[in-house]
Amino acid sequence: MARDDDGGLPGRLTLLTDFGSADGYVAAMRGVIASRAPACMIDDASHDVPAGDVRAAAFALAKYWKRYPPGTVHVVVIDPGVGTDRRPIVVAAAGRYGVGPDNGVLTPMLEEVESIHEIRAAGLMTAEPSATFHGRDIFAPAAAFIAAGGVPEAVGPPVTDPVVLAEDPPVRMPDAVYGRIVHVDRFGTLVTNVTADLATGAKVEVGGIRVGPVRRTYGDVAAGEPVALIGSDGRLEIAVRDGNAASLLGLGRGAEVRVLAD
Amino acid sequence: MARDDDGGLPGRLTLLTDFGSADGYVAAMRGVIASRAPACMIDDASHDVPAGDVRAAAFALAKYWKRYPPGTVHVVVIDPGVGTDRRPIVVAAAGRYGVGPDNGVLTPMLEEVESIHEIRAAGLMTAEPSATFHGRDIFAPAAAFIAAGGVPEAVGPPVTDPVVLAEDPPVRMPDAVYGRIVHVDRFGTLVTNVTADLATGAKVEVGGIRVGPVRRTYGDVAAGEPVALIGSDGRLEIAVRDGNAASLLGLGRGAEVRVLAD
Amino acid sequence: MARDDDGGLPGRLTLLTDFGSADGYVAAMRGVIASRAPACMIDDASHDVPAGDVRAAAFALAKYWKRYPPGTVHVVVIDPGVGTDRRPIVVAAAGRYGVGPDNGVLTPMLEEVESIHEIRAAGLMTAEPSATFHGRDIFAPAAAFIAAGGVPEAVGPPVTDPVVLAEDPPVRMPDAVYGRIVHVDRFGTLVTNVTADLATGAKVEVGGIRVGPVRRTYGDVAAGEPVALIGSDGRLEIAVRDGNAASLLGLGRGAEVRVLAD
Repeated sequence: MARDDDGGLPGRLTLLTDFGSADGYVAAMRGVIASRAPACMIDDASHDVPAGDVRAAAFALAKYWKRYPPGTVHVVVIDPGVGTDRRPIVVAAAGRYGVGPDNGVLTPMLEEVESIHEIRAAGLMTAEPSATFHGRDIFAPAAAFIAAGGVPEAVGPPVTDPVVLAEDPPVRMPDAVYGRIVHVDRFGTLVTNVTADLATGAKVEVGGIRVGPVRRTYGDVAAGEPVALIGSDGRLEIAVRDGNAASLLGLGRGAEVRVLAD
Repeated sequence: MARDDDGGLPGRLTLLTDFGSADGYVAAMRGVIASRAPACMIDDASHDVPAGDVRAAAFALAKYWKRYPPGTVHVVVIDPGVGTDRRPIVVAAAGRYGVGPDNGVLTPMLEEVESIHEIRAAGLMTAEPSATFHGRDIFAPAAAFIAAGGVPEAVGPPVTDPVVLAEDPPVRMPDAVYGRIVHVDRFGTLVTNVTADLATGAKVEVGGIRVGPVRRTYGDVAAGEPVALIGSDGRLEIAVRDGNAASLLGLGRGAEVRVLAD
Repeated sequence: MARDDDGGLPGRLTLLTDFGSADGYVAAMRGVIASRAPACMIDDASHDVPAGDVRAAAFALAKYWKRYPPGTVHVVVIDPGVGTDRRPIVVAAAGRYGVGPDNGVLTPMLEEVESIHEIRAAGLMTAEPSATFHGRDIFAPAAAFIAAGGVPEAVGPPVTDPVVLAEDPPVRMPDAVYGRIVHVDRFGTLVTNVTADLATGAKVEVGGIRVGPVRRTYGDVAAGEPVALIGSDGRLEIAVRDGNAASLLGLGRGAEVRVLAD
């Protein structure tokens, strides 16, 4: 069974893991994929996700999965439950494919889901799959199968109750919109759950610290000063120009942010 | 001279170094390869191997070299002896090729070796090769030559006495099998030299700490508990579920592990 | 308009950023490029450049840009001024292309520049470009346009006054050549601004420490000893064999180096 959209082959496949690279685990996955889908171009999204941090991985995936063209296969292996009864799945969404454990890490793709199937077909897996490295033994072969033009229905039975990561929405109160820091990026920028439409107040406070009105870009304040702005994903962010907001303000995931009405 | 197996071109080439990426050394190697084997897909295995750690690199290479399809060229440049009289070599093994210094780093491929040649053909090297960056000036050009379909015999004379990394085998005694930690991975998992067939005892001890019987996967113990299991390479490993065994147990490479008879 | 040199397509494109990989920013850029130049092979040069360190990025770019074949597109996004009025540019140099902010980061290519154009054509950018992520919204689309065979003239008006990073040259005095450390690499090697032709003295001093004459390679001194040599780029470097010169000598960027006349 070949997919209708396989005219674009050789396709692309991306890998997101918390494996680091130095131990050779990722290279083993790439080797399995290269053996089964030889023409496929394999992109490293990242292997530096904090160990076991499903939420951080989902946050990263949200940034890129739909920027890739239809037909792309996104493999995400943040899998603290490897070897337990959590299901390995293939998600089809907006013409792209996601392959990973059913632990919520594929949540961004579930928002536009077309189908979900559990990976069960033994013929797809490596011989004698290990109990501790499904990235190599189950996810890589299934991803290569899809990348080579296989249809998701062929990997196993449909799944109707996937695990979804919930994100608490911000709360609109008379005096302010109350939200939280949900991610800290490499630059120390504090990303919130407050979307642009809710960030229209005159004053932003985070962890009790006033950071002023929402501005357009970092350059709108002096070097070393905190700045609130709408980030490239349409969420309220707090940064420090030419500095690290997380360390300078002493804040991290979970801290409260308030957008005060004028 | 073209290889018999070059029908698979464009092929794949992997890079494993201790160069990091930020200084541009690896990109210089990729540029040389891209110039000489333009159709070749270049995979980063890792550039984060600890500086000069030939043993860690060989351990990683063992994980992936044979997962890649025949014809793949594996470049490994962990080369503390660059510029001395250690030989640069090309290894052919099980249809794959290894390119790197003859300092033991290619040991995993030597177990199935078909041929070894010293890289001497001046026409392969960049003009005026440096004394300190053979990755760019000798290994990359030789690897590109092989990736583009060249035969190993053309790179230089055969080598019959390659450097091999020895690994002390575990010792079977009446009371127990005695082994050692030989690698610590990114998750802090302690990988031993004890193979699955020797790990049949009822109790595993490492660094004097009891970690119980050999189990199937991490989920077989509670979070934070140590667990002994057979890893994805068929070796006894000691991990801590959702934790870092190396730091929690205070152990590293060289520590003793015992598998006690029932 | 297609380029004369596009016969080499699918081409290569390299990415150099200070984004790290874990947040998904780089993957978003790759997705944009893959969507617009599907056959293009995308190489990661590095994403670990120190945040905002334009000089370190330029130093890395110098190592590789010309090692890649003509037609290659080098994307460099070290962009502390994102969202201000610094210009986004496309540089053509020696048959290769550079894409990035006009803040000096493309300086190595400017030494052989053929043309420079400001990226202004709205049709190239993503819809509603953000003020804080031009890597995804402006540089990636422009780079994909060039990688797919587009001509630089089509991206916008010519630029005649690009920002250039100046490097103080070494000074030749009667007693010695006086230079500086301009880069510290991953191994702790201290790279200077003293070129090989000026490094002919009998004694090298750095930070007041004598490191002896200029030698050929690390192996010319005992393990743990400092050594001065001409590095793979033709500059005087000070290393410690099997050690880290920067931490062992307590020196970094800016420290003085002297090459004393015999």
